[in-house]
Amino acid sequence: MCEKMDVEVMVVDFWANGFGMRVRIALQEKGIHFEFKEEDLRNPQRSPLVLKMNPVQKSIPILIHKGSPICDSLAILEYIDETWNEGFPLFLPKDPYERAKARFWASFIDSKIFGSQTRFLKSKGEAKEAAKKDFLEELKQLEGELGDKTYFGGDVFGFLDIVFIPFSSMFYAYGRHGEFKMEAECPKLASWVKRCVERESVSKTLPDPIEMYELHKKWYGSE
Amino acid sequence: MCEKMDVEVMVVDFWANGFGMRVRIALQEKGIHFEFKEEDLRNPQRSPLVLKMNPVQKSIPILIHKGSPICDSLAILEYIDETWNEGFPLFLPKDPYERAKARFWASFIDSKIFGSQTRFLKSKGEAKEAAKKDFLEELKQLEGELGDKTYFGGDVFGFLDIVFIPFSSMFYAYGRHGEFKMEAECPKLASWVKRCVERESVSKTLPDPIEMYELHKKWYGSE
Repeated sequence: MCEKMDVEVMVVDFWANGFGMRVRIALQEKGIHFEFKEEDLRNPQRSPLVLKMNPVQKSIPILIHKGSPICDSLAILEYIDETWNEGFPLFLPKDPYERAKARFWASFIDSKIFGSQTRFLKSKGEAKEAAKKDFLEELKQLEGELGDKTYFGGDVFGFLDIVFIPFSSMFYAYGRHGEFKMEAECPKLASWVKRCVERESVSKTLPDPIEMYELHKKWYGSE
Repeated sequence: MCEKMDVEVMVVDFWANGFGMRVRIALQEKGIHFEFKEEDLRNPQRSPLVLKMNPVQKSIPILIHKGSPICDSLAILEYIDETWNEGFPLFLPKDPYERAKARFWASFIDSKIFGSQTRFLKSKGEAKEAAKKDFLEELKQLEGELGDKTYFGGDVFGFLDIVFIPFSSMFYAYGRHGEFKMEAECPKLASWVKRCVERESVSKTLPDPIEMYELHKKWYGSE
């Protein structure tokens, strides 16, 4: 039964896609084996599989479970948590208020932090300085939520850790582009990254920071 | 007990805020009385209450339950559904796959449709035509998901209905700005709106379409 289920899980993703890293980390945290189907985002054409499985957004990651596609990385994380629930570690806490807080911060990361990050990486000169200011301010707000806790939810690696840890593979690129060190700007986030990468699910999933820097330099023409 | 709980629920919102309408409709669907605290978005200054209760985003709606703030309209809807669950109508279906679909479309509405709507309302000339094309395409994709069902989730008014119905108070404004009729472009969505406004929670919450048109004309300088 377990083996049958295992081969029935596929993730369509690109190795450097932070949204997809979330899904791959989540499945490993639950101990679910999956097939990784590479979709190369450097090619502007989407594959027939992506066009068939996500015709609305035409984007990755896509989780395909027993032939049915689930799209949007946060919706996928909730799906994984709800599908593999009994006898598996849970990402979201039980308390509705704590769940709402985790979802609020996930939304903040995807709307605010991701938006500022992209503006920052794409820009030069004054625009870059303005975007860098916004970006660092938002990272510090997120760091305020972490505080002195081990993980965002407390003692247990969970939902918000999975949502944000893929960004850490870009910390080196942020520093190179903006001439700062994440360890100096956000020391608590930097320490939290060190704790997270001790987990095999994370260390096996996050790409090499220098490769990420080189890729984004090409993509955005940034330095 | 029930009466005590009732006065402990407050919504900080502006009458014309579609994201906040979701929260007000949801509470009425659950039969929860709440105090409505008006925050006038026409004033660029946020009130001390908003700055205290949502210091990160400084935005509305905010649900305050027993003194604790919950922010981000989708996170609030999930909170309401999880907090008032036993003996109350449920917004999200039980099946994880159906829940994931509802969350996917909610994210599509907030990222794609809301973005295109705003570009469309703010623009003139060629930019307006391009934004109108995107906006109508996305509305038709959403209409495809509705299909011939009574509500998005089937026979029961639920999560995705609550998420999208506030947009219908702008259908008149969209048509005036873009010189089209929603009934002609998206007839199934238009019929769905008629079914939704038969519910007291919806009809009591949605503002007058002409007032919405006038407000947005002033805001965006659109026609």
